[in-house]
Amino acid sequence: MHVVVTNIRRTDRAIADAFAGCGVATIHEAQGRKGLLGPQLRPIYPGARIAGNAVTVSLPPCDNWMIQAGIEQCQAGDVLVVAPTSYSDAGYFGDLLATSLKARGAAGLVIDAGCRDIRDITEMGFPVWSKCVFAQGTVKETLGSVNVPVVCAGQIVNPGDVIVADDDGVVVVARAEAADVLAKSKAREAKEAEIRKRYAAGELSLDMNNSRQRMAEKGLVYIDQRADD
Amino acid sequence: MHVVVTNIRRTDRAIADAFAGCGVATIHEAQGRKGLLGPQLRPIYPGARIAGNAVTVSLPPCDNWMIQAGIEQCQAGDVLVVAPTSYSDAGYFGDLLATSLKARGAAGLVIDAGCRDIRDITEMGFPVWSKCVFAQGTVKETLGSVNVPVVCAGQIVNPGDVIVADDDGVVVVARAEAADVLAKSKAREAKEAEIRKRYAAGELSLDMNNSRQRMAEKGLVYIDQRADD
Amino acid sequence: MHVVVTNIRRTDRAIADAFAGCGVATIHEAQGRKGLLGPQLRPIYPGARIAGNAVTVSLPPCDNWMIQAGIEQCQAGDVLVVAPTSYSDAGYFGDLLATSLKARGAAGLVIDAGCRDIRDITEMGFPVWSKCVFAQGTVKETLGSVNVPVVCAGQIVNPGDVIVADDDGVVVVARAEAADVLAKSKAREAKEAEIRKRYAAGELSLDMNNSRQRMAEKGLVYIDQRADD
Amino acid sequence: MHVVVTNIRRTDRAIADAFAGCGVATIHEAQGRKGLLGPQLRPIYPGARIAGNAVTVSLPPCDNWMIQAGIEQCQAGDVLVVAPTSYSDAGYFGDLLATSLKARGAAGLVIDAGCRDIRDITEMGFPVWSKCVFAQGTVKETLGSVNVPVVCAGQIVNPGDVIVADDDGVVVVARAEAADVLAKSKAREAKEAEIRKRYAAGELSLDMNNSRQRMAEKGLVYIDQRADD
Amino acid sequence: MHVVVTNIRRTDRAIADAFAGCGVATIHEAQGRKGLLGPQLRPIYPGARIAGNAVTVSLPPCDNWMIQAGIEQCQAGDVLVVAPTSYSDAGYFGDLLATSLKARGAAGLVIDAGCRDIRDITEMGFPVWSKCVFAQGTVKETLGSVNVPVVCAGQIVNPGDVIVADDDGVVVVARAEAADVLAKSKAREAKEAEIRKRYAAGELSLDMNNSRQRMAEKGLVYIDQRADD
Amino acid sequence: MHVVVTNIRRTDRAIADAFAGCGVATIHEAQGRKGLLGPQLRPIYPGARIAGNAVTVSLPPCDNWMIQAGIEQCQAGDVLVVAPTSYSDAGYFGDLLATSLKARGAAGLVIDAGCRDIRDITEMGFPVWSKCVFAQGTVKETLGSVNVPVVCAGQIVNPGDVIVADDDGVVVVARAEAADVLAKSKAREAKEAEIRKRYAAGELSLDMNNSRQRMAEKGLVYIDQRADD
Repeated sequence: MHVVVTNIRRTDRAIADAFAGCGVATIHEAQGRKGLLGPQLRPIYPGARIAGNAVTVSLPPCDNWMIQAGIEQCQAGDVLVVAPTSYSDAGYFGDLLATSLKARGAAGLVIDAGCRDIRDITEMGFPVWSKCVFAQGTVKETLGSVNVPVVCAGQIVNPGDVIVADDDGVVVVARAEAADVLAKSKAREAKEAEIRKRYAAGELSLDMNNSRQRMAEKGLVYIDQRADD
Repeated sequence: MHVVVTNIRRTDRAIADAFAGCGVATIHEAQGRKGLLGPQLRPIYPGARIAGNAVTVSLPPCDNWMIQAGIEQCQAGDVLVVAPTSYSDAGYFGDLLATSLKARGAAGLVIDAGCRDIRDITEMGFPVWSKCVFAQGTVKETLGSVNVPVVCAGQIVNPGDVIVADDDGVVVVARAEAADVLAKSKAREAKEAEIRKRYAAGELSLDMNNSRQRMAEKGLVYIDQRADD
Repeated sequence: MHVVVTNIRRTDRAIADAFAGCGVATIHEAQGRKGLLGPQLRPIYPGARIAGNAVTVSLPPCDNWMIQAGIEQCQAGDVLVVAPTSYSDAGYFGDLLATSLKARGAAGLVIDAGCRDIRDITEMGFPVWSKCVFAQGTVKETLGSVNVPVVCAGQIVNPGDVIVADDDGVVVVARAEAADVLAKSKAREAKEAEIRKRYAAGELSLDMNNSRQRMAEKGLVYIDQRADD
Repeated sequence: MHVVVTNIRRTDRAIADAFAGCGVATIHEAQGRKGLLGPQLRPIYPGARIAGNAVTVSLPPCDNWMIQAGIEQCQAGDVLVVAPTSYSDAGYFGDLLATSLKARGAAGLVIDAGCRDIRDITEMGFPVWSKCVFAQGTVKETLGSVNVPVVCAGQIVNPGDVIVADDDGVVVVARAEAADVLAKSKAREAKEAEIRKRYAAGELSLDMNNSRQRMAEKGLVYIDQRADD
Repeated sequence: MHVVVTNIRRTDRAIADAFAGCGVATIHEAQGRKGLLGPQLRPIYPGARIAGNAVTVSLPPCDNWMIQAGIEQCQAGDVLVVAPTSYSDAGYFGDLLATSLKARGAAGLVIDAGCRDIRDITEMGFPVWSKCVFAQGTVKETLGSVNVPVVCAGQIVNPGDVIVADDDGVVVVARAEAADVLAKSKAREAKEAEIRKRYAAGELSLDMNNSRQRMAEKGLVYIDQRADD
Repeated sequence: MHVVVTNIRRTDRAIADAFAGCGVATIHEAQGRKGLLGPQLRPIYPGARIAGNAVTVSLPPCDNWMIQAGIEQCQAGDVLVVAPTSYSDAGYFGDLLATSLKARGAAGLVIDAGCRDIRDITEMGFPVWSKCVFAQGTVKETLGSVNVPVVCAGQIVNPGDVIVADDDGVVVVARAEAADVLAKSKAREAKEAEIRKRYAAGELSLDMNNSRQRMAEKGLVYIDQRADD
């Protein structure tokens, strides 16, 4: 059965928005190394950073019809997440749909397929993470669903989960865990800022967390090459 | 038999040049979704847009000798299209050949293989679409042909066809159809400009072209999640 | 046995540094088309050019622990070369390790795996050539070795070899051959500058090095298409 | 948090077993073209057909420790489904673990990673669907979870879902839908047997389901090439 | 415009059939190293060898409708060649279509996409060369064309060309050249039988065709390692 | 400089041959998880197991000339290891070269490129591990070297190292370590036979090597799903 779920439960907007200040790598670590979408998803231009509620679209390969139904479900700040049910590199999304999505206030698009018209979309400043750039057209013949759980680039995304994306890629945070993960991400950033200072001052990671000793215990041997001379 | 065909029949220069104002995605759609070269072809720097007559080079894998013969056949505005007869990611084309090709007034290069010296070529402003960047050298031992039909990134390219390339990739338009496809592309652009305005104003694609009704007829169901609460 | 080799024999710093003025493609050709690392290694931002002594790290897949030991072995101008012993696209290297490596004066990183925090590393201006960008975390559990010969992106890299990297990719020059290859690279650049001038003036490569005659001898035939009309 | 869920709710054994008579392609179609794991999963030897309850293992890349905990949760007829949390082609599973799994009566293994010792496993007649064959060893250092929902080769698999695998690949059927999908699969097989007879007798699919007329309506034109002569 | 071309000009059946005795590699060499389809095309079972006239189908990605129209155009001994207009790994072809194609006497199928039901098709003994095995279903919504020139796995195939396929892959021979290429292939086979005997008797290729001398002229040096001892 | 090194130092034949009784996975583990060639190398037919001294060939992409020089250096029991200096999937090796290599008593071929005529080579019973099957021809124009260190499928192979290959792939053992690794491999096999018996009898790996306790210490939690009911 093909459905569009309306009025989905969303993560609190303030929490979702607050993630935009954190890096994708940090959030991924903070939530126990889960939720990271695959490295095939790359931004069409560098520098964009977004966070928002996921509105999900599951659609058949090479058919972009359901994106229309997905756009209608987007509110300001949402991130549209599009996942074909089978591998496809076709260009499901171009500057017209980007115009429509931007008009609804969406923060961006994540698609495990191709994107086109990237010159225009870049000029619009509408951020997209996609598997490739490809102008190949799609059809509008077969139904899919909106706001059902999808697998996008190897991760389960539920509608109302938080999506964060930056130059490193895309991570999903479950709605129920969002507040907790946000706090952990902020804490991690603070801790990393501290470590960064120590590294910048010349301190070695080898001398932190007992690394040098643990390595020795596991049998690491130092050999001075000058001794061979 | 290895041949160089000279004085090929070209698409009228005015028509070929006029394509540069149209996007690759638009042209691909305007001609019935054909002629699009594969997504592996990417520009070495963003922002370039070219259109011109194809001068084709078919050459053996890992041997760039025939590019020399191809360059001689190029006139101002032409696009050199290079297709190895078997998969190769070697670097067939660097800044020296780019200098020579630019000196003949060629508009750019499309190659289903690797390119090198991209820093210099970018500084020259000579646009290249290639499968990869790789400095691996090639030899000059075995003949190929110039201005014969080639398969480049999955598409047949005949000499004198129009090649259009931009940030979305590369499309080929058959010489016999060029005037017709140009008119259709221009018409499509005008129509898309109209749609863009409507989308920007908040109109939904769902409410255009009878989409909402067709989806309902195919069985799409709307479910309000608040009803579960 | 897992080892860290200290005080490795390095290529003379003046020689290593002098390579930074030469392109990767030129050096690859100058040393007889060897030493080129695979095209999967791409810079995380364009424009960087580095040359320096290789400090090598061999580590297990998905475990970045040994990078800590490798950083300690780096001196000013060195290039850290990291090679997992099996395919991995995880993110072994982020902005914290980049800070530490930069504090030691290292010139850059080459890694046959993933890199993360690329926004921050780009802002730091610390150049990295990696197989992909991926935030996937790694563990710190299993030993590897530092300053042993490694295979990185298909090439043998010995500690103290010269690594040169630019927008075209990465090339390794053996320590014993560095002075000779540098001289040959400089000579090649001078020769290419000469050819570039001739090409820019309209001369054809076809008329240099006896190409036109060799092609004819191998049977190349010219056919004038106007003759068909 | 890392967990092992014991005493999972299973699909009724009789229903699960009954799927073994149906082809993967048939089941995929019968449940509305969903649930098909990616084509990278191939059997290590041809001819095996299995169906059983999924016991799932989520584990870190290049670490096979949790398979030990997963094996303990297997009952007769179960299928172990192993999914690393990041891309890996290492060899997580060999003939020793196969011996253990077979001793528990498991029907087979599905793993989105590598398998090794395939000669011995083939001789044992223990069927495995894997992404590749690779002898690369893994470590036993980091926890994962058993019997949690996993994404395996692009599909969500919940513990207690039915896994069916044959020469075409692997499909998952949700526990709640298993009885219904089984009935639909059987019905589809009966219907296909009927069609097969008609095709074998020379009837054309073009003349069934109104295809010829629908094609004509969409504008398909027949051209007789003899008319050109 | 979408067309089905009927009554295509075929290669003489006796010539087409005669190719089945020649290997794909031999034919590829005999016609000057052209016409070889890409290595992604593999047989679903080993040992099959076919040769026949190409009936071509061009169809949109993920839509197998036009195969129905293609089957009707097949005569005894023909090979159906199916090429999606964009990359797709879906399963366009299963045992039902195989039954229909076999009923028409077709010799086999070549498809630059996926195939399914391979267990049944293998039992039927109907040979298929495909890019992958994947049960993913396709739709029947959009037109394509039958018996137009197509690009299949990187090669142009015209209807009525000869297709030869064996364990090495697939090669196409142009209709106009078929008789000539057949003669050259037979001659090559005879010559290779002669060489095989000499090799089997211990003669070295190095001592044939002047190889040893040419290598010396190009600068090959022999070094005896015992001299180092 | 291009060289052929003759009279290389070989691993003792008795030691090399003795490896044929050990599995590739076992040897890889026994020597500390090193030396495993990449998973892209697959046997052209199942069931072959070989071990022998490496005779290495380094050659340019798409040029198989140096294989002729390599064959001459092979003695009975040797394994020819062929590595192009850049990525290539062309068919460097067919049944004629196989005949010649077999006539010299070579045990098999390992090639990080394509192989062709696999039907004939399979019938000859001459085992080949290659990256792909592809009939694409190569040229004989450019020199390479024989019996120099090469990188093959990601591993350094020195002439006179031991190569072992079976259905799992290919592993290289350094000459200096061969006797030691052989002993360790035999010991490992004996130990594994013991473990296999215990597993077959129902013992769990979880209860060996302290796994259950270590997992608990790292925080693994068991949850009984029946408790939810």
